Amino acid sequence: MKVSQLFTKTSKTAPADEVSKNAQLLIRAGYVNKEMAGVYDYLPLGKIVLGKIMDVIREEMNGVGGSEISLTALQQKDTWEASGRWSDDVMDVWFKTRLANGTELGLAPTHEEPLTKLMKGFISSYKDLPVYPYQFQIKFRNELRSKSGLMRGREFWMKDLYSFSRNQEEHDAFYEKISEAYARVYSRLGLGAITYKTFASGGSFAKYSHEFQTLSPVGEDKIYVHEGKKIAINEEVYNDEVLADLGVSRNELVERTAVEVGNIFTLGTKFSDALDLNYTDEAGKSKRVFMGSYGIGPSRVMGLIAEHFADDKGLVWPENVAPFTVYLVRIGGEAAVAHADELYDEMTSKGIEVLYDDRDERPGAKFADSELMGIPYRVTVSDRLLEAERYEYTPRASGVTESLTRGQLLAKLG
Amino acid sequence: MKVSQLFTKTSKTAPADEVSKNAQLLIRAGYVNKEMAGVYDYLPLGKIVLGKIMDVIREEMNGVGGSEISLTALQQKDTWEASGRWSDDVMDVWFKTRLANGTELGLAPTHEEPLTKLMKGFISSYKDLPVYPYQFQIKFRNELRSKSGLMRGREFWMKDLYSFSRNQEEHDAFYEKISEAYARVYSRLGLGAITYKTFASGGSFAKYSHEFQTLSPVGEDKIYVHEGKKIAINEEVYNDEVLADLGVSRNELVERTAVEVGNIFTLGTKFSDALDLNYTDEAGKSKRVFMGSYGIGPSRVMGLIAEHFADDKGLVWPENVAPFTVYLVRIGGEAAVAHADELYDEMTSKGIEVLYDDRDERPGAKFADSELMGIPYRVTVSDRLLEAERYEYTPRASGVTESLTRGQLLAKLG
Repeated sequence: MKVSQLFTKTSKTAPADEVSKNAQLLIRAGYVNKEMAGVYDYLPLGKIVLGKIMDVIREEMNGVGGSEISLTALQQKDTWEASGRWSDDVMDVWFKTRLANGTELGLAPTHEEPLTKLMKGFISSYKDLPVYPYQFQIKFRNELRSKSGLMRGREFWMKDLYSFSRNQEEHDAFYEKISEAYARVYSRLGLGAITYKTFASGGSFAKYSHEFQTLSPVGEDKIYVHEGKKIAINEEVYNDEVLADLGVSRNELVERTAVEVGNIFTLGTKFSDALDLNYTDEAGKSKRVFMGSYGIGPSRVMGLIAEHFADDKGLVWPENVAPFTVYLVRIGGEAAVAHADELYDEMTSKGIEVLYDDRDERPGAKFADSELMGIPYRVTVSDRLLEAERYEYTPRASGVTESLTRGQLLAKLG
Repeated sequence: MKVSQLFTKTSKTAPADEVSKNAQLLIRAGYVNKEMAGVYDYLPLGKIVLGKIMDVIREEMNGVGGSEISLTALQQKDTWEASGRWSDDVMDVWFKTRLANGTELGLAPTHEEPLTKLMKGFISSYKDLPVYPYQFQIKFRNELRSKSGLMRGREFWMKDLYSFSRNQEEHDAFYEKISEAYARVYSRLGLGAITYKTFASGGSFAKYSHEFQTLSPVGEDKIYVHEGKKIAINEEVYNDEVLADLGVSRNELVERTAVEVGNIFTLGTKFSDALDLNYTDEAGKSKRVFMGSYGIGPSRVMGLIAEHFADDKGLVWPENVAPFTVYLVRIGGEAAVAHADELYDEMTSKGIEVLYDDRDERPGAKFADSELMGIPYRVTVSDRLLEAERYEYTPRASGVTESLTRGQLLAKLG
């Protein structure tokens, strides 16, 4: 893509009311626009990054047998009254609205109830189990405060997968499998080294409810990390029973702040009890379906990646989620233009994702934009470099420029 | 994909309150689930079809220079008060809600206002124009009645593109270009022959507001069709002035009912006036940006395709939007199973999209499911056919079975 085709512009300032670093940078670099606190539009560059994060998650969910669906935001009262979660006293993040005829509706903050109800139409026998529907869907949560940019949204993207199993044993096997898939997701998104599978419920269920927590100074959660075992315990269940269950002691653990980037829950029969979701087992006996739920917020993860890797010059995207791999800067007259045009075509035809700064701007402005946008590799073509038959190649993360021949350059990016 | 991996099941009945043919069939075949009138979940098969329709539209929008973005459902009052469209008396399809602090919000039924406001941050000079942002986004419309299945949703998918141009001349050129792109969309979706570019506003703007109307007995619109010129006039502007503008006379036109599958509007400076969106022209003078908007509802189009092509056995998808190209039926014992498994692998490795009915069901049930689901080609493998070294090949549309050798079969599907 050419920068001249991109309708966004970078900016030196963010809205005065935006206090989070991730949103400030994403707004300044033209990735998102703030509608209101916790509600962000995705502009072309932001849409690409969000899509790449979703693609990684989708691959891993398909890999564990997930079936992609898409449920609705509008929700009926009776479905949620069955589980007791319609009341604002029980679930305090509801946005409610009304049909023209006055009927009260809700905007889904999560989807256990409608999906459990839906599955009653498709699950009747043990032969129908297990199944793993999932979706990427806009969730609405009426948060009282929302000051963490993309990391705490009132309207945000969520991947939610739900498991429907015959019994706890079948469930547990899947729980382990998706737990490993989650670890692969964070690793592919560049967060593997700082993301901990974190025990999040105590006692005998300790093994069956976890958060994935990524270390971050702006995190809202406090966790206790065992660096050697690469596990952690959430503050809420940091007690002797859990420590004993895990076979670790307090002096091995370090207190850290972290952001919850995913969670995996054993629901058991809570929702199948409430909504009467049963199956007939091999012996002809009616049993409750055993459920689990598994969430990752792609928009929160995008905010966290932005926040975590940024430096004083702007964003620094890991290659897997960057909107483009190369930021091509051209400096100079006709020869440089023709040469850069041709290099852009060649790289693009090789499948390299290039954002080509074809504007008539001064070099400093182009360099600053490439840094603020956080594109992994900057390649510079100039009259002076052409004379020497060289290109400048500058990884965003290191900022260290190398002088390369064309062959060397294409080999690096190939 | 194997039918055993699909969690949905076909059904002989649809919900009693579902009166539209498209939704009845899509529910019975397991493509969608009805949450309430005008609000449908997309199940695995439905999600694939919706995605294919979106892919066709996306390609064509990118082809005319569109930039994909994603705006928010939650909307602020002041943005819409600027244009006078916040009031329920002016726009009667609003769903409204409130933040926890009591602030009133709306759920976007369309996006002219927030996007115009957003573009103020990116448009200042003639050099910034034209630009064509678009999105696929969930829209909310609080329709009083919603009895047409996916064709009139309260929560539905919309592709909306907005054009921002320097002046009417630049706008008109784009208007023609996107009009041609729209025609290509309907043609690629199998609706080309029955879709008419329809004049939808009268007088001197007759050239600059059109609907794309697809003939259908269940359509809610009345149009007057000129079959020779492949154009039509909407009932609302069917008057002498428009007839004269178009150079056609009443006796050349036929009255038909139709479904609006898209629209293209010249907005002019209506929203740039209201929200003060200006640019500085080549001479340094401040001018209003000239706008247009262009909508296609992928979920409505999906409903219409379902409704239009269906027969008494069920759905009949055009190949471009079908969730799978081939429905592979296996009948018989071990040899048939092994052979069908192997054929499935070969077709899949050749990139043919196959839904393989690997269930131990009687042949009649498999045939009925393949017909209800509307997969374009059914291929049957059976013990008897294997002896003769033959396969049965049955296009869904014709229902006429041919007996083919393996080479002939793969050539047909290649």
